[in-house]
Amino acid sequence: MELRELGEFGLIQRLTRMLAEAGVATSPKGASFPLVIGIGDDAAAWRIAAWRMNDAIELSTTDTVVDGVHFTRETTPWHDLGWKVMVANLSDIAAMGGVPLYALVTLGLPEDTPVADIELLYQGMIECCREYGAAIAGGDVVRSPVAFVSVTLNGVHHGQPMLRSAAKVGDLLAVTGFLGSSRGGLELLIRHPTVDSEAAIYLCQAHRRPRPRVAEGRILSEAGVLAGMDISDGLLDDLGKMMVASGMAAQVDSWRVPVHPLLLRAFPDRALRMALAGGEEYELLYAAPAPVMEMTIARIPGAAVIGRVVAGAPGQVGVLDHDGRHLPGLDAGWDHFRS
Amino acid sequence: MELRELGEFGLIQRLTRMLAEAGVATSPKGASFPLVIGIGDDAAAWRIAAWRMNDAIELSTTDTVVDGVHFTRETTPWHDLGWKVMVANLSDIAAMGGVPLYALVTLGLPEDTPVADIELLYQGMIECCREYGAAIAGGDVVRSPVAFVSVTLNGVHHGQPMLRSAAKVGDLLAVTGFLGSSRGGLELLIRHPTVDSEAAIYLCQAHRRPRPRVAEGRILSEAGVLAGMDISDGLLDDLGKMMVASGMAAQVDSWRVPVHPLLLRAFPDRALRMALAGGEEYELLYAAPAPVMEMTIARIPGAAVIGRVVAGAPGQVGVLDHDGRHLPGLDAGWDHFRS
Repeated sequence: MELRELGEFGLIQRLTRMLAEAGVATSPKGASFPLVIGIGDDAAAWRIAAWRMNDAIELSTTDTVVDGVHFTRETTPWHDLGWKVMVANLSDIAAMGGVPLYALVTLGLPEDTPVADIELLYQGMIECCREYGAAIAGGDVVRSPVAFVSVTLNGVHHGQPMLRSAAKVGDLLAVTGFLGSSRGGLELLIRHPTVDSEAAIYLCQAHRRPRPRVAEGRILSEAGVLAGMDISDGLLDDLGKMMVASGMAAQVDSWRVPVHPLLLRAFPDRALRMALAGGEEYELLYAAPAPVMEMTIARIPGAAVIGRVVAGAPGQVGVLDHDGRHLPGLDAGWDHFRS
Repeated sequence: MELRELGEFGLIQRLTRMLAEAGVATSPKGASFPLVIGIGDDAAAWRIAAWRMNDAIELSTTDTVVDGVHFTRETTPWHDLGWKVMVANLSDIAAMGGVPLYALVTLGLPEDTPVADIELLYQGMIECCREYGAAIAGGDVVRSPVAFVSVTLNGVHHGQPMLRSAAKVGDLLAVTGFLGSSRGGLELLIRHPTVDSEAAIYLCQAHRRPRPRVAEGRILSEAGVLAGMDISDGLLDDLGKMMVASGMAAQVDSWRVPVHPLLLRAFPDRALRMALAGGEEYELLYAAPAPVMEMTIARIPGAAVIGRVVAGAPGQVGVLDHDGRHLPGLDAGWDHFRS
């Protein structure tokens, strides 16, 4: 069987089972720093200290982009690529409610890569690190016929990291900001249709310079939110993953999903679909009981309740219209190896 | 300018300077976990606890292999590749004297990769993790036209990690075991010359299943060794890097470099050169004053003194024969982008 038949998630499931059966998916025997979150969440985590008042958990995540697969030079200049690959990692730490610390950067590069391009790539990473308080502590440079960038980021959490698996029946669901704008920007960059320039500038910026919700993740965690993740593959797809991990189902009120007015202006007929299924957003999706949810909505400008967690087939996500009727035929998946 | 003109080490120097000038190569402001080792050593390290009796430093390293650049399917089956990429990372933690903990594994794979091959790759990683007490805690799978495997490994050290920059004038230099065998094995795998089978089995095993010196690294660190690294690019090349980092020069007594009798039997004329310049060894190279050195030689079977640290042009490495005369014309470098 070839990888394309099994798909990315099928492969990950199979490898995870192999690791678990071999006993290498959990803490090594006698480990002084026990693993508390293994494969399957936004970041791995292990406990590094457990003194009174000084509980600390190390978080570790990794994200890789490959030339021609995750980006093309036409829609993503090197400078933006550096920013975006760092954002993808920062967003995983934000999704756990953690504080980012140190990154290792691996570059795979053809020999004829212009050095000036590599410097632009690093410039983008540097700007992102400065803005979000991370540092680059090491890495690796290797020759490769195809360019790729792989970043690993470590961070820390002094309490209980947010998990995909912690959503409960009765929890409300919310997101930290507008959805779909990054996807709108990507379509503009590919197709160059005529739209008024205010919308074009906003949407392209949303695609090329997405913002990880690091401060928001910490606010959520401090408010007591236990279930969260970042939206990188699209709201419905990622919500489905969260519900699978939690063994729950979800309902989304489509009319409550925050859509930016400029996305609506540029794509009046498709804005909602982009908000439900567009990827590379890096807003946070979270679930919490009503009293906790109220606190988070009060503290995070732009955060909005979009639905609720219900009993049902694990991973099932229903999308409702204003009258509570199901909207049929919405995409919910994206698999790099199958699509 | 293209990357091939600048070379790997030129690029790393330039990027390191960029990061330092931008202030993102050191601890972020107010970081509770200060960076203690940044770019330039075998692993990065930051302090995670500093209570009496509980000093702890987190180590983090990464290593990547690319199909057709670092391995070919003829000399490295998937199973061995999994073992070797994990060894490269374990060896970096060993080189600091640390205890390996948790790995993140990123696979870049073409869609037509047989799933059975990926399972063999993982099987090799699993065997290595079990043997050396590490666990796989997460990772990423991405589509890529060229296969690559990138591993990040975190570990911990409860004292002072060994550094490349800590060698002092008067220190003796030593290695933890036989050198050159991996290179001998590679040549056999490529050329298939007729050698007696005992030597062939030993040398091919040395190339395909190298062993990271994790226990030895801890013994060195506990004995008080402060200067060390692993030999991955060949003794002379790596010793040169250590001397550059320490601002010192070195003399190697060629006749003291440990060469396995079976390497000598298979390559009588070239064994010494292989021991001096062959890569992918993963023995540790370290420097220490004589009293500390004596303890390490007593505690590590196979460890051998090979020379000394002297004052001189930083990075200069002289190779001496039995009568103290310099041996000329020995290779000292390997650059993936230039060679």
